[in-house]
Amino acid sequence: MGKSSDIGKLYLVGLGPGDSNNLTPAALEALEDSDTVVGYRPYIEQVRDLLDGKELVSMELTQEMERAAIAVDLASAGHRVAVVSSGDTGIYGMAGPVFRVLVDRGWDGNSPPLEIVPGVSAMQAAAALLGSPLMQDFCAISLSDLMTPWDAIRLRLEAAAQGDFVVALYNPRSRKRDWQLLEARRILLEHRSGTTPVGIVREAYRPGQGVTVTDLQHLEQHVEAIDMVTTVVVGNSTTFVHESSMVTPRGYERKETPGSKAPKSPPPSG
Amino acid sequence: MGKSSDIGKLYLVGLGPGDSNNLTPAALEALEDSDTVVGYRPYIEQVRDLLDGKELVSMELTQEMERAAIAVDLASAGHRVAVVSSGDTGIYGMAGPVFRVLVDRGWDGNSPPLEIVPGVSAMQAAAALLGSPLMQDFCAISLSDLMTPWDAIRLRLEAAAQGDFVVALYNPRSRKRDWQLLEARRILLEHRSGTTPVGIVREAYRPGQGVTVTDLQHLEQHVEAIDMVTTVVVGNSTTFVHESSMVTPRGYERKETPGSKAPKSPPPSG
Repeated sequence: MGKSSDIGKLYLVGLGPGDSNNLTPAALEALEDSDTVVGYRPYIEQVRDLLDGKELVSMELTQEMERAAIAVDLASAGHRVAVVSSGDTGIYGMAGPVFRVLVDRGWDGNSPPLEIVPGVSAMQAAAALLGSPLMQDFCAISLSDLMTPWDAIRLRLEAAAQGDFVVALYNPRSRKRDWQLLEARRILLEHRSGTTPVGIVREAYRPGQGVTVTDLQHLEQHVEAIDMVTTVVVGNSTTFVHESSMVTPRGYERKETPGSKAPKSPPPSG
Repeated sequence: MGKSSDIGKLYLVGLGPGDSNNLTPAALEALEDSDTVVGYRPYIEQVRDLLDGKELVSMELTQEMERAAIAVDLASAGHRVAVVSSGDTGIYGMAGPVFRVLVDRGWDGNSPPLEIVPGVSAMQAAAALLGSPLMQDFCAISLSDLMTPWDAIRLRLEAAAQGDFVVALYNPRSRKRDWQLLEARRILLEHRSGTTPVGIVREAYRPGQGVTVTDLQHLEQHVEAIDMVTTVVVGNSTTFVHESSMVTPRGYERKETPGSKAPKSPPPSG
């Protein structure tokens, strides 16, 4: 079904989490229309059976700027190139490095033409496996301080805690970054009860899938099992657990759990 | 392909935004496996051609608790029921009302069995059409104060502004709620420059799709065109516009725009 053309094209494609059950038809169509697929090795493997006859550029995690540059080069030279990310390309995915390359090169917005295909992100997969933890205002925070200084991340954790947001933590912990998650927990505990539910989802919709529901107080005991393919979802002051489902009610219409803290009311603004 | 069974089942299904190009195979499978589909009328219409031979319970927007109760009743009586939402059922979708009914009825976690199928949410569709605005930590805030008091929403807007989050505003404006968006703008302007990019996406991936990029200062001029099928994405201090794409760089590695404000550093914590 792939079209041939001498006009290059650059697709940024979110593959969704895990298996191809979460790959949208739009993402499939973008892959089919491409002659070249560029991505982190495991994500290429994730959709390998859809890529017969295509040029594959599969690289390691640390080479994302190289991947982005190669993709832009190939598309500029007339290739139809799909740059794939797990989850949503626009959420901590390859859209970032590719836009950096495009902007650095003075991209005119048209050559190569760019199409972005969104996908189900890791926090949504985690939420679906946990219950309905994201049913009120939420934020996503990456605990990786490679691109963002820890001071900025800490500022966000404090703001999220003060604003009573449900918090989805991306990149919570790696071998080299092993203290950030516990520091995030410490900051959240300054504003939330130790009984605040916490969902831990590892390898959503993949063979090694693991789903754990605990609370802020006991998160410490689960830290060793948390890694870069884990998403951690921390409830807000109204979140509760019902029969192992993590539930954030839609609003503040009633208290669901004994001991939950109501959000502090801000001073009147004027 | 629908299986028949005398065991009921309750699916919470995110249809994704707009056309069926964003409907995942998992969502399609859930619809196929259901004998009854329950949802807000336009969302039922959105997938009508997939629903031949099924019982359809299509209701109005204000009847979401009724929809949820009917779905739980039917699933408890042995039907296989899909409750559909546009976008992601877990993000301001029907997962909320359905969990409320399940909890109120003392659901045991198994009868009826529940399966949640995530979908691409409105802010992700908006982001894909705008460029890569969500490439740093972001939050989603609904400006509807029907379920959440405005004080709590204001607290979140202030926290999001202080934390330098990119902000996706859901339910930004309706005929009856016409001041909240401008109040949100006022709060954000206390912490962000008037030149902060703002993306406005209406009816993503639907026939009436509209994409506008403006800034906080000029948002006021676009307010009349913003309604309940619009998502508004407000950049953080590093977000810039390149050839009509709204771009948030991945980190704070360099200043992208003249006049952008660096986030305030919090006092050292200890």
